[in-house]
Amino acid sequence: MRNVRVRLAYDGSEFYGWQRQEGFVSVQEAVEEALESLLGVHVTVHGAGRTDTGVHALGQVASFHVETRLDDNCLLFALNAHLPQAVVATDLETCGDAFQAQIDARGKRYLYLWRTTRFRPPFGTRFCAWVPDPLDLPLMRRAAAHLVGEHDFTTLANAGSPRNSNVRRITALRLIPKRESLGMIVAGNGFLYKMVRTIAGTLLEVGRGKLSPDVVPELLASCDRSRAGPTAPASGLYLVRVLYHESCFQHTTFGPRGRPGVFS
Amino acid sequence: MRNVRVRLAYDGSEFYGWQRQEGFVSVQEAVEEALESLLGVHVTVHGAGRTDTGVHALGQVASFHVETRLDDNCLLFALNAHLPQAVVATDLETCGDAFQAQIDARGKRYLYLWRTTRFRPPFGTRFCAWVPDPLDLPLMRRAAAHLVGEHDFTTLANAGSPRNSNVRRITALRLIPKRESLGMIVAGNGFLYKMVRTIAGTLLEVGRGKLSPDVVPELLASCDRSRAGPTAPASGLYLVRVLYHESCFQHTTFGPRGRPGVFS
Repeated sequence: MRNVRVRLAYDGSEFYGWQRQEGFVSVQEAVEEALESLLGVHVTVHGAGRTDTGVHALGQVASFHVETRLDDNCLLFALNAHLPQAVVATDLETCGDAFQAQIDARGKRYLYLWRTTRFRPPFGTRFCAWVPDPLDLPLMRRAAAHLVGEHDFTTLANAGSPRNSNVRRITALRLIPKRESLGMIVAGNGFLYKMVRTIAGTLLEVGRGKLSPDVVPELLASCDRSRAGPTAPASGLYLVRVLYHESCFQHTTFGPRGRPGVFS
Repeated sequence: MRNVRVRLAYDGSEFYGWQRQEGFVSVQEAVEEALESLLGVHVTVHGAGRTDTGVHALGQVASFHVETRLDDNCLLFALNAHLPQAVVATDLETCGDAFQAQIDARGKRYLYLWRTTRFRPPFGTRFCAWVPDPLDLPLMRRAAAHLVGEHDFTTLANAGSPRNSNVRRITALRLIPKRESLGMIVAGNGFLYKMVRTIAGTLLEVGRGKLSPDVVPELLASCDRSRAGPTAPASGLYLVRVLYHESCFQHTTFGPRGRPGVFS
């Protein structure tokens, strides 16, 4: 049996999240069914993190054990041939037997994307959230700075499944305006249920002038979810990267950024 | 009666092109119906150019005569409230009575957008075309250079409706790679039926090494459509801008780029 890890991009609006659930179409199920139709046996796929309904991925990582003569590159192509339109495996490699996509992850990076046009985006809000209000970016950045570091993030998470601790470390939180879009990039060692979307919703309240950036430390200390901003829509959220101690997908034929799609 | 011009963005995949046709949903019809439901009378809307089925617009221009007490800004908001999701009016202003969106246009600018990822884009090909093959960009640019200037473009257009002359002037034709995308920006004083998409398809053949850039002058001289590349899919094409001698939409509350959606 070979332990294989794969990097996946998907349109989350087509699925009820990552995790397999009876009666709902999930990304996990889509990948497992593709592998089953390819290899003729059921293969259980373990994802690095559960993305919620409607949340997209550019770099979800999953691992699974298979028995096949296909080399990594052939397996990657064959897997893509069996996956539905809305899921693509961008990289695949055989890894050490001990590798576990979820447990080994030392962190994750997410993108939250807003369109900041005056009128609703004609190309839809399937891949973004729309915010027509003027935003005060310096205020948002001041609030963001208060979130970086190690904190108890109970205030900024939905209850979800109980965990031992709600302390997490945010290593970076940047706001990047670009023409009529605003991106929030957040990286950390782990995220609670709906934490990224609540951070996005809270920073938006600050940007609109409805919440002072200076109350953020107090907000965190209160451990009271009702004091944070609303949860931003799933459509704007992308799981961009899962971070590991070992370097992954360095030796695949083409890296995610490495491939010159165009020779320039 | 006031002569009003409006700038429109739309998702072309929702429409059978710009022009009103019995039994098919068109952008023109959508705008006319929005105005009718707003003002209570039928208003005929004249577009600067007919976009085909599936072709998108970021800056289509249309003009129409109305009788209303609403000022430009209110009319813009009210129009957007009545337009379907896939059409947005980004700018609107009262203009000189002689202005005609189509006849006064001195040129247009289009974008053709490819995704150049190895595997099919998980976010779909509704707003782009997908080309997984490696492309030789210097060759494509050499071919593009042969198209700039005044030429008879019969070779690069579908028959469509007969015109007096197939001579057009391309003022700029640039290829812009960006990560895993490739954009083609083309500007000119006019474009024949499916000309931009045939240019895109032909440059792609050059990029793939199937057509030499040096045969382009001969191709143009032949006036033989069968010698050009295939017509690229409508989904990758955007009408970006209609150019006029007079400056348009300079005094609207917010320009198309002028609005600071985000204060940074």
